[in-house]
Amino acid sequence: MVESRAQSSGRRLRAAMVGGGQGAFIGAVHRLAQRLDGDIELVAGAMHADPEIAVASALELGIAEDRAHRTWMDLLEDEKKRPEDERIDFVTIVTPNFLHAPIALAFVQAGINVVCDKPLCLTEAEAAELVAAREASGVVFAVTYNYTGYPMVREARARIASGEIGQVRRVFVEYHQGWLATRLEDSGQQQASWRTDPSKAGVGGAVGDIGSHAENLVSFVTGLEIESVLAECHSFLGRPIDDDTQVMFRMTGDVRGTLTASQICIGDLNGLALRVHGDRGSLYWGQENPNHLTLKSLDGPDQVLHRGADYLSPAAADVTRIPAGHPEAFIEAFANVYRGVVQAVRAGEHNPEKYAYPGVEAGAAGVKFIHRVVQSSAEGCRKSI
Amino acid sequence: MVESRAQSSGRRLRAAMVGGGQGAFIGAVHRLAQRLDGDIELVAGAMHADPEIAVASALELGIAEDRAHRTWMDLLEDEKKRPEDERIDFVTIVTPNFLHAPIALAFVQAGINVVCDKPLCLTEAEAAELVAAREASGVVFAVTYNYTGYPMVREARARIASGEIGQVRRVFVEYHQGWLATRLEDSGQQQASWRTDPSKAGVGGAVGDIGSHAENLVSFVTGLEIESVLAECHSFLGRPIDDDTQVMFRMTGDVRGTLTASQICIGDLNGLALRVHGDRGSLYWGQENPNHLTLKSLDGPDQVLHRGADYLSPAAADVTRIPAGHPEAFIEAFANVYRGVVQAVRAGEHNPEKYAYPGVEAGAAGVKFIHRVVQSSAEGCRKSI
Amino acid sequence: MVESRAQSSGRRLRAAMVGGGQGAFIGAVHRLAQRLDGDIELVAGAMHADPEIAVASALELGIAEDRAHRTWMDLLEDEKKRPEDERIDFVTIVTPNFLHAPIALAFVQAGINVVCDKPLCLTEAEAAELVAAREASGVVFAVTYNYTGYPMVREARARIASGEIGQVRRVFVEYHQGWLATRLEDSGQQQASWRTDPSKAGVGGAVGDIGSHAENLVSFVTGLEIESVLAECHSFLGRPIDDDTQVMFRMTGDVRGTLTASQICIGDLNGLALRVHGDRGSLYWGQENPNHLTLKSLDGPDQVLHRGADYLSPAAADVTRIPAGHPEAFIEAFANVYRGVVQAVRAGEHNPEKYAYPGVEAGAAGVKFIHRVVQSSAEGCRKSI
Amino acid sequence: MVESRAQSSGRRLRAAMVGGGQGAFIGAVHRLAQRLDGDIELVAGAMHADPEIAVASALELGIAEDRAHRTWMDLLEDEKKRPEDERIDFVTIVTPNFLHAPIALAFVQAGINVVCDKPLCLTEAEAAELVAAREASGVVFAVTYNYTGYPMVREARARIASGEIGQVRRVFVEYHQGWLATRLEDSGQQQASWRTDPSKAGVGGAVGDIGSHAENLVSFVTGLEIESVLAECHSFLGRPIDDDTQVMFRMTGDVRGTLTASQICIGDLNGLALRVHGDRGSLYWGQENPNHLTLKSLDGPDQVLHRGADYLSPAAADVTRIPAGHPEAFIEAFANVYRGVVQAVRAGEHNPEKYAYPGVEAGAAGVKFIHRVVQSSAEGCRKSI
Repeated sequence: MVESRAQSSGRRLRAAMVGGGQGAFIGAVHRLAQRLDGDIELVAGAMHADPEIAVASALELGIAEDRAHRTWMDLLEDEKKRPEDERIDFVTIVTPNFLHAPIALAFVQAGINVVCDKPLCLTEAEAAELVAAREASGVVFAVTYNYTGYPMVREARARIASGEIGQVRRVFVEYHQGWLATRLEDSGQQQASWRTDPSKAGVGGAVGDIGSHAENLVSFVTGLEIESVLAECHSFLGRPIDDDTQVMFRMTGDVRGTLTASQICIGDLNGLALRVHGDRGSLYWGQENPNHLTLKSLDGPDQVLHRGADYLSPAAADVTRIPAGHPEAFIEAFANVYRGVVQAVRAGEHNPEKYAYPGVEAGAAGVKFIHRVVQSSAEGCRKSI
Repeated sequence: MVESRAQSSGRRLRAAMVGGGQGAFIGAVHRLAQRLDGDIELVAGAMHADPEIAVASALELGIAEDRAHRTWMDLLEDEKKRPEDERIDFVTIVTPNFLHAPIALAFVQAGINVVCDKPLCLTEAEAAELVAAREASGVVFAVTYNYTGYPMVREARARIASGEIGQVRRVFVEYHQGWLATRLEDSGQQQASWRTDPSKAGVGGAVGDIGSHAENLVSFVTGLEIESVLAECHSFLGRPIDDDTQVMFRMTGDVRGTLTASQICIGDLNGLALRVHGDRGSLYWGQENPNHLTLKSLDGPDQVLHRGADYLSPAAADVTRIPAGHPEAFIEAFANVYRGVVQAVRAGEHNPEKYAYPGVEAGAAGVKFIHRVVQSSAEGCRKSI
Repeated sequence: MVESRAQSSGRRLRAAMVGGGQGAFIGAVHRLAQRLDGDIELVAGAMHADPEIAVASALELGIAEDRAHRTWMDLLEDEKKRPEDERIDFVTIVTPNFLHAPIALAFVQAGINVVCDKPLCLTEAEAAELVAAREASGVVFAVTYNYTGYPMVREARARIASGEIGQVRRVFVEYHQGWLATRLEDSGQQQASWRTDPSKAGVGGAVGDIGSHAENLVSFVTGLEIESVLAECHSFLGRPIDDDTQVMFRMTGDVRGTLTASQICIGDLNGLALRVHGDRGSLYWGQENPNHLTLKSLDGPDQVLHRGADYLSPAAADVTRIPAGHPEAFIEAFANVYRGVVQAVRAGEHNPEKYAYPGVEAGAAGVKFIHRVVQSSAEGCRKSI
Repeated sequence: MVESRAQSSGRRLRAAMVGGGQGAFIGAVHRLAQRLDGDIELVAGAMHADPEIAVASALELGIAEDRAHRTWMDLLEDEKKRPEDERIDFVTIVTPNFLHAPIALAFVQAGINVVCDKPLCLTEAEAAELVAAREASGVVFAVTYNYTGYPMVREARARIASGEIGQVRRVFVEYHQGWLATRLEDSGQQQASWRTDPSKAGVGGAVGDIGSHAENLVSFVTGLEIESVLAECHSFLGRPIDDDTQVMFRMTGDVRGTLTASQICIGDLNGLALRVHGDRGSLYWGQENPNHLTLKSLDGPDQVLHRGADYLSPAAADVTRIPAGHPEAFIEAFANVYRGVVQAVRAGEHNPEKYAYPGVEAGAAGVKFIHRVVQSSAEGCRKSI
């Protein structure tokens, strides 16, 4: 057994969280991921739209009373007044989508580093504003496309970059879930309610919530950009927003792709899967069995690569904590995104490529993708990105 | 262990084969399938476009000299002259696609039952003519969409018909191979050469060769018809015919579907896979692991059904030869299509539904599908079927 | 797609079958296997212990009236009288175990080639007599350890022989079924009844019926002999014979092994699986997913080999009928044993190694194994083979 | 998506660690597990046998200088002097095996709760002394049989307890690794060196290091005790300690079992797998794919259960952090053992059953098992436990 490669060093960072209180899903995941490596301490929060719940949620998590805020504006004001050695190093924004932009903008403008959940925001204008504001302020701004944190996704990217499967030709990416196969929102379930409401989720339903993960994954792994889409968005349950979307897309170099994102696929849990075919080989990865990457070639046996093995690239090894055969999973992958953020914040440098985290720029690309898909579906014709 | 259910009875049928001689692929498969149950004897052949090779191929297979013909016309003339107790019961046509129509038509018009490989023919006009001719003559006319012969495909159809997954909503079907990822036709390889030549294969490359299997499978299992398509056909190797096609389609009742067919997916061997999602459950089947069918539901564990198990429907049990755990595979499935043909020929009745074989009508639907896909791709817009 | 490699040539052989009539399991499997390649014609039979059923079973299968015999003695007498160009080329014996020895001996002594199901016979004395008689007569004598017919089992043997995994150290073989988890024999089920009756099955229950397949498989693949065993036989249902056996064994060169054979493992269907670990690599094969062989090494990714691929050895290619991705299975593997028999019979030479079929000698080794296991279990100590 | 069920409450516990400094493997895993839920803070340590490394390791981890000790004796003395609101709540012992007993005993006698890695200690006498000392002092004493922390292992136990597979009959458990397939210890690798040295590891090599996990798992899941063993221990590399062990064992109620533990199985990573067959059904679980549990029955389809699904028992739900389809893995399972410890420590009650952690008693059973296995192997006969 090899020793864990992952022992970070340096100052522990102070974090705040906006959203993610009682009834939330992704906030708890962020906290699990933040704690794993011992590099981050959650010290402040404004954790719910309801001020009472916001405070209660923060206290429950052991946040000090004077940093358990009623609103994100209170939080921001308070942080601005604190001395540097108390002030938060970054804020994590895990509200419903429509609140991402105003909150992120305010923190960026105050010079505070931001980790924002995806999709980045509702409109392309907001996205552009956030990118510009970040450039102006120089802060670190990450968007939690958490699936890029999986070691075998990093390996896939490294292998393609090194030419192992040759020139990329054809990609298939899918993200299928079944949890919206019934009108769960009618029961008042919090997650379902805002995610099916365009005023809170944006123009994309399934395409925004999970299709954007698929889009980001395929771009991240291939290193290519999506150039155009021909798409169909549909709701099988009469929703004002898609719960099922399919896209025929093209990437740089006339690469062809198929993307399907659906939340009405009963039986599918969190089925994000990617296949990339080049002119010399191909690779396969699936999120529900994330410790393996399969590599195929024109004329040899299939190869199954295991996370933690000695033959992997540094890109994968750097985000591996325990030996092969001892599986790592979703939370560890999420923590790997934070690991990049921690390094960037410590260095005081926004550099997604260097520190291996998804930046605000990737978030903006995602917002553009969602809009082009929805437009293509409405107009029945191909749209350039 | 249960005993084999499959012991047919009745007269052994006499078969002839057109095509399938030296250098052919699918002809040998037909012969393996014909022999398995002992119900068919190959007694005559015109097995190659080259008359010398045709005769040599037939003799090699133990066909008597006077029935080892130089051309299919010779074969047909000879059969017409023979007394009924010598004459073939059916002819199997396994030539390149462009010869299917003239040969099949001649035999149908001579009152001889036909088993023809897919796609049925090159044009919709030919397809219509064949359907009409069969109606006029009353013969049995099967098209070897062989994947419908798998017991677990039959089970899938039966389960959907009985409402087990509720109303069908969303289907995904794919058929991915990699054998045309290089320009194999440039080496003169016989299979690659005619399959990439539109004058021999028809307007569809991948979509015709394997996409039509996918189309037939999804129609067979769901019992629904494809009503429209929005498609992209592409060749990654500059072929005059597609080697990669993707289709967004709609079926009866606003069912939505995604079909991808590719022959440039390095690493994929014969990857035909189907997923059907209804409003109460879903099912999954893949050709490379054909002895299982997975059934999922809104609220219970996934179920994995095994071919040969007692809990399966008669539709599956009827085409099962050996007990669960003793895998059956491609040849057995192919033989199941012949089993239906044998029953129909013995009964003297063309009835694909009753005897469970794909009929000329399904073949005609396939030809229409191929054409609509190619048209949609050329015009960039949705086409009705 | 490559063409089928399997097109045999030469005279079609005439076969007789003893046993395998109505109510039997394995007889029907033998017939499917015999028919597949078109090299064998079943022309005579004495297919049941009950003379009436014997005749009816044979007629049902299209055997001529004068060769549908009441007893195997009748069959043998009749064959002796027939001219050479009518006489059977071999007899297949698929009776319950206790009848194997007398019937096989009689046919061997009459100079008729024999294919006998396993286990070869009940006692070591019988086994020795059969081996000696075969030597004296010179006939071909095969025992249907059918799992050796799988192409990927042949590949495993070839890879080990070529040193790919280094010196073999440790083997694990298991054969688990669940069909005797209840007292099926109490219902009069024919298979269960004789297989749990020591007077018909011999001293071994699970160890004889399936443990002997596992023993043969591990010996075949490694090329090593089992030298000693320390075993426990048990019946969970109070049977006079084991329904569950476990063995710690040693092979040539101090190789260590674990063998488990059970017929009370509810949920297991026909779970024969083998793992062989050498000092440089290892390989894994399982019968229920037989088209793959996994190869692992000290320091590289796992390799998954596919039946039908170009990189396989001639040993596998020789028994492959259709291309990779088009699965072959149990019946095809069984037919591969017959393919070897056909070659040996045509050559008039008993040579299991050369023609790749399991010979009477392997059958005798199996009988010895069963007895040593049962003795070890009774005495609680290690037994040499 | 459902919300995380796991949000603990209550005071954060203070922990110390003995061992687990630079060059160690399992110490880092403990720290990852301790951090995950935010309930534990590592405040003190004596982290290496070398005092300099011990201090450096602790400082590296952010432990305060006055609590970064040179020896465990220093640590213990220091803790004894501290006021209650500073004193550690428990100590984690992750030294090589031979140091477990003296260290654990000292802390227990000082009234400090203990978490000790497995195997508990070297001798049965030590084990008895630890059990007695814990009874005398009343502290919480857990042994990190971490695989019991997997939610689907908890589910397996719950299903068997509720009778879902009927009376247990037959179990198979294996734990295969390949990392000692070469003489890694000759290179000075720290893990390999002490684990193959009987003076540090104890009488058991593979059986102690991983066989004891297998033994604990099978006992935990079935709720039964191992009553006797017939075993063979072997070293393929001439080590003074086994690197491969196989055991035929019996449990309460004449349940029969097979256990194999090997560290020379090239290609196996961390292959812990369990199968339990009852008289009505069976279940299957494997550590490398831990989010699933397969349940089989006499007459229905196999069932695949997913961690996080609504149909699981409270025992599994209580240790689930994120929804089905979002995999959890090794670290989360390890953290689940700590979750039980935290609850027990907060309650001030040693009760492994109630708080779901493995207690010192299970550790003592493990030590007894190792010794009986080694004795059985040496004497060649069956040994009662």
